[in-house]
Amino acid sequence: MTVKVGINGYGTIGKRAAEAINKQDDMKVVGVTKTRPTYEASVAVELGLPLYVPETSADDFKKAGIKVAGTIKDMYKKVDIIVDCTPGDVAEEYKKEYAEAGVKGIFQGGEDHSLTGISFNASANYKESWGAQFSRVVSCNTTGLIRTLYPLDRKFKIQSVFATLIRRGADPNNSKSGPINAVEPSLKIPTHHGPDVQSIMPWLNIQTMAVKVPTTIMHLHTVTVKLGAETTTEEIIELWKEAPRVRLVSGKSGIKSSAQIMELARDLGRPRGDMYEIAVWEDGVKVVGDTLYFYQAVHQESDVIPEIIDCIRSMCKIEEDASVSMRKTDRSMGI
Amino acid sequence: MTVKVGINGYGTIGKRAAEAINKQDDMKVVGVTKTRPTYEASVAVELGLPLYVPETSADDFKKAGIKVAGTIKDMYKKVDIIVDCTPGDVAEEYKKEYAEAGVKGIFQGGEDHSLTGISFNASANYKESWGAQFSRVVSCNTTGLIRTLYPLDRKFKIQSVFATLIRRGADPNNSKSGPINAVEPSLKIPTHHGPDVQSIMPWLNIQTMAVKVPTTIMHLHTVTVKLGAETTTEEIIELWKEAPRVRLVSGKSGIKSSAQIMELARDLGRPRGDMYEIAVWEDGVKVVGDTLYFYQAVHQESDVIPEIIDCIRSMCKIEEDASVSMRKTDRSMGI
Amino acid sequence: MTVKVGINGYGTIGKRAAEAINKQDDMKVVGVTKTRPTYEASVAVELGLPLYVPETSADDFKKAGIKVAGTIKDMYKKVDIIVDCTPGDVAEEYKKEYAEAGVKGIFQGGEDHSLTGISFNASANYKESWGAQFSRVVSCNTTGLIRTLYPLDRKFKIQSVFATLIRRGADPNNSKSGPINAVEPSLKIPTHHGPDVQSIMPWLNIQTMAVKVPTTIMHLHTVTVKLGAETTTEEIIELWKEAPRVRLVSGKSGIKSSAQIMELARDLGRPRGDMYEIAVWEDGVKVVGDTLYFYQAVHQESDVIPEIIDCIRSMCKIEEDASVSMRKTDRSMGI
Amino acid sequence: MTVKVGINGYGTIGKRAAEAINKQDDMKVVGVTKTRPTYEASVAVELGLPLYVPETSADDFKKAGIKVAGTIKDMYKKVDIIVDCTPGDVAEEYKKEYAEAGVKGIFQGGEDHSLTGISFNASANYKESWGAQFSRVVSCNTTGLIRTLYPLDRKFKIQSVFATLIRRGADPNNSKSGPINAVEPSLKIPTHHGPDVQSIMPWLNIQTMAVKVPTTIMHLHTVTVKLGAETTTEEIIELWKEAPRVRLVSGKSGIKSSAQIMELARDLGRPRGDMYEIAVWEDGVKVVGDTLYFYQAVHQESDVIPEIIDCIRSMCKIEEDASVSMRKTDRSMGI
Repeated sequence: MTVKVGINGYGTIGKRAAEAINKQDDMKVVGVTKTRPTYEASVAVELGLPLYVPETSADDFKKAGIKVAGTIKDMYKKVDIIVDCTPGDVAEEYKKEYAEAGVKGIFQGGEDHSLTGISFNASANYKESWGAQFSRVVSCNTTGLIRTLYPLDRKFKIQSVFATLIRRGADPNNSKSGPINAVEPSLKIPTHHGPDVQSIMPWLNIQTMAVKVPTTIMHLHTVTVKLGAETTTEEIIELWKEAPRVRLVSGKSGIKSSAQIMELARDLGRPRGDMYEIAVWEDGVKVVGDTLYFYQAVHQESDVIPEIIDCIRSMCKIEEDASVSMRKTDRSMGI
Repeated sequence: MTVKVGINGYGTIGKRAAEAINKQDDMKVVGVTKTRPTYEASVAVELGLPLYVPETSADDFKKAGIKVAGTIKDMYKKVDIIVDCTPGDVAEEYKKEYAEAGVKGIFQGGEDHSLTGISFNASANYKESWGAQFSRVVSCNTTGLIRTLYPLDRKFKIQSVFATLIRRGADPNNSKSGPINAVEPSLKIPTHHGPDVQSIMPWLNIQTMAVKVPTTIMHLHTVTVKLGAETTTEEIIELWKEAPRVRLVSGKSGIKSSAQIMELARDLGRPRGDMYEIAVWEDGVKVVGDTLYFYQAVHQESDVIPEIIDCIRSMCKIEEDASVSMRKTDRSMGI
Repeated sequence: MTVKVGINGYGTIGKRAAEAINKQDDMKVVGVTKTRPTYEASVAVELGLPLYVPETSADDFKKAGIKVAGTIKDMYKKVDIIVDCTPGDVAEEYKKEYAEAGVKGIFQGGEDHSLTGISFNASANYKESWGAQFSRVVSCNTTGLIRTLYPLDRKFKIQSVFATLIRRGADPNNSKSGPINAVEPSLKIPTHHGPDVQSIMPWLNIQTMAVKVPTTIMHLHTVTVKLGAETTTEEIIELWKEAPRVRLVSGKSGIKSSAQIMELARDLGRPRGDMYEIAVWEDGVKVVGDTLYFYQAVHQESDVIPEIIDCIRSMCKIEEDASVSMRKTDRSMGI
Repeated sequence: MTVKVGINGYGTIGKRAAEAINKQDDMKVVGVTKTRPTYEASVAVELGLPLYVPETSADDFKKAGIKVAGTIKDMYKKVDIIVDCTPGDVAEEYKKEYAEAGVKGIFQGGEDHSLTGISFNASANYKESWGAQFSRVVSCNTTGLIRTLYPLDRKFKIQSVFATLIRRGADPNNSKSGPINAVEPSLKIPTHHGPDVQSIMPWLNIQTMAVKVPTTIMHLHTVTVKLGAETTTEEIIELWKEAPRVRLVSGKSGIKSSAQIMELARDLGRPRGDMYEIAVWEDGVKVVGDTLYFYQAVHQESDVIPEIIDCIRSMCKIEEDASVSMRKTDRSMGI
């Protein structure tokens, strides 16, 4: 069986999801949508992706010489599931459309858990989305926290977590937003990131704070964890060496900042220079007494992509075993 | 009595210390030093500050048409105390020179506590430097942490502190250093900032982590404090309203980031646009159970300046009462 | 006679204009306006500036505990002239209000020349605004170009000018706008800056291009000028040494970038660290054949402030002689 | 015949050259060098590239567990030609080593023309390097200027060119260098870029100025050209549509800044997100009278890579016809 997937919103996440889906043997992109005739729309067509557009902007695409396959509603008829990568505010509306069209829908972490009632992380709760009509792949930052915390919790029983999220100001292709030279705290504290992790790990005692800084590449987290069992720095590192979608990097080898992690991703030949794994600095991990300190970096543009693939498999009942799905995904993406 | 002060190193801290000292009625700058004939040296002379230079570069100053008052060693003969604002690595050497010349010396937080054996913060341990030949005003970040934590600890008995320091990449007048687009963690953790706070508050249980980000203005801290006594967000805010050299700011009034704090300092008519106080976001303070969360911003170029003034008073035995000295300093600087 | 001035819009330009006006002996700020109860409004009141607000937001100011002196329309009754520092789009509307209220109005360079039909630069055309009801002080960039080009043209008869404007992405107190990591060209070329210079020097053959870059401090221009008379690099430098509101700086003395120009302004004790003069790199000026090449930096927040003062004197017929007015302004502002 | 190529210096240019060479059917990388056991060295080995290291650091590589194939001198014995991607200062020394080892050498644009006496651009002077032992592929900026100017000059006889180069402060993987918030002019003017273009087009009358800005992605040029023949904006655009390694982009389609050009490269599936072509804004080209104005963006990390391939073909006498070599190179790299 090949699941037919539509991508609603061919932007930062949508274009990556499309690429990754088309590397799988059990699913296939049958359409992507774009609301304006930008260069991104042109490239989608060049790449052979059927392009669906809002009825109201069909003319604009025509004028721009970009060939479209139909309207967004036309696309609904061709798909089993939609990966919704639309910007904020409109998900509620689209969810209704998907429901009416009888297609499944995966939403992104920008939406609240309450939209779908089910949130997804492949390692932690693959089965919860089994056969579901709607699910939500949690945000890049939440995915990042779960990737490192879930295996820790299973082995060492986490007592409590505190994390500070140092967030990128804007994505690389956004040249409008700042800050250029300032740091901006998220004043509503503790921030929503803790509860978002709890949408997957409801038992976890976690609090977070966040600031926005002038960078376009990667979020970076400082994390402190009180552990319920004695351990050592070395044991923690070993655990993460085995953990899915976590990659240890080292300052000693020249990876001093998020810049060199992005360079590593390019060196590895990753499409778009993406780093799907959460990068943890091996020489920035330390256990002191019952507390673990570490830094991790999250590639906000791509870390959720493998989760989206696995979520499709769970929702469309293609593969029952989470670890089989994850291995398949990872192998196809060069992780 | 007017204490005669020499400033060794007329840079970021040195120029501010000179200005502030000359606003006091009990001390006076009798010389500043500079090693190269830069525009900063020219301005010092324009401002009427006697300029002392290394013997070996006297010629360079002559060629550049900058009038010098003598060599650095000449300056030692004219002063009671030196404020050492030299860059890293050379303090040990200079300390010997000061000792030989029989002058007192105040070092900066870039140096280790072990250099002087005494560290200084006006609120917390004014008396420890009383009459001392050498003392050290702790760094901008350490000063920032002590300003908010010391009053907290006195009133609510702190059980433990964890802080993440989001550090500026370079000062505003440094156009060489980066990062331009990256975040760099301090991998040696817990970082040295915790022990540095303990040089003043040795009983405090504090751990820190730090990252460097692409901004030139202000460090920003996320701080979590476990308190030993029950309290409320409001009580904490009241405490800091009364605390010396702490200023509450508010996102609601438009202060969303470090950028607007710097604008506020300029609006207030502060020389150089300096913010001597530690800025705490009133709407970013929150007590949850026994834990207090807050954000504070530290103007790395200027927050230690009032401490330097008070330290001179303590070391030179001009004023016995810390709070009298602090009020005097603060009034003169418009705090 | 003391001219009574109202500042409509107490933002980046408005607050500086207010400060500078209150340093003059022939004019006085009798009111400033602000539309929202921000920290800037609070500081205005703290500084003793009567604050006028839109009728519709009077309540918000009350709730925020900020004391207001009346509505914007109340202010019109108290002033001879308004310095209009409102953001784009609304000038046309306000001009009508000023006309109805029978007060004069100075607009900023963000508005088109056509709004007033008269544009102002103190050196170049002081008399054109004599007694006018409305005039426009040209923008920071245009002012910068005229400051260096006007004396050049008088002495060496400019044949043609080409300039590239490397513009700051956002002002220091704006933490919303980018770009964080990109350079953005102004695609409509030649850009409007050339015609804007011609609103003051209509005979000048000038073309411009512009890009926006990730900095908050200063615009920087690369300028090439074909001269109509033979000269030397030295002669040009001498000319600018005498030119009003132009300041020569030097890479050799350590001023390598816009960062050190801002530091110089702070070192000179300028309020807010403002650099009112156009900074020209002395060691970045070069005559090759009939062509002059140079770099200049423009402090976008403040270079027009002295022009605003002079424009008030011309419009309100306080001082007939441009150079007398300019000297008076400059002395009061420490230029 | 398969030319055996060694890459001396596996950094920004070296790693890209290696990748591109291995896509050709007439040349092959037989070794790369690295002086320190960084992550980049590890990845080179993972990718199957034989790694050669300085004798003196062989131990460090051993300790780091990175397998080396021999010393740099060992590599000389295995290669026909070296692509020298070493940092500045050492090229003179290396040239001697290559001469002694009897291998050819291609240097980069960081070196002076005088090092080799021959400089290379595929379109403009492919034949000059025919059979040469040493040649120099001109720098990213110079290559960028030649790509657009050479076809212009052939068709419209350029009278003179003036360009301002807005340079990136540091490459993406360099997190040390700034500026963070400043613009820095190259004070020695006219800058060396003009003469560097003349190393390929000696007849061209070209002058340049340059500034450094806080971005890591792409240089951007503003260029004005006096043409010797009448033409129109449309004709110029048509010319560049046909010109090799020039790509027209459009603000109307959403490419507003260098950020979106980099995004386009990623969308096109380019390895590392590289944009080998010089990007010219179609809606930022304008002919006014005899003068052409345009903006172009240069991907400093990659635009010279296809030139390096062609230069190898010319120096090693693999292909006599420049356009055949260029087509081959371009097809292999997806240009």
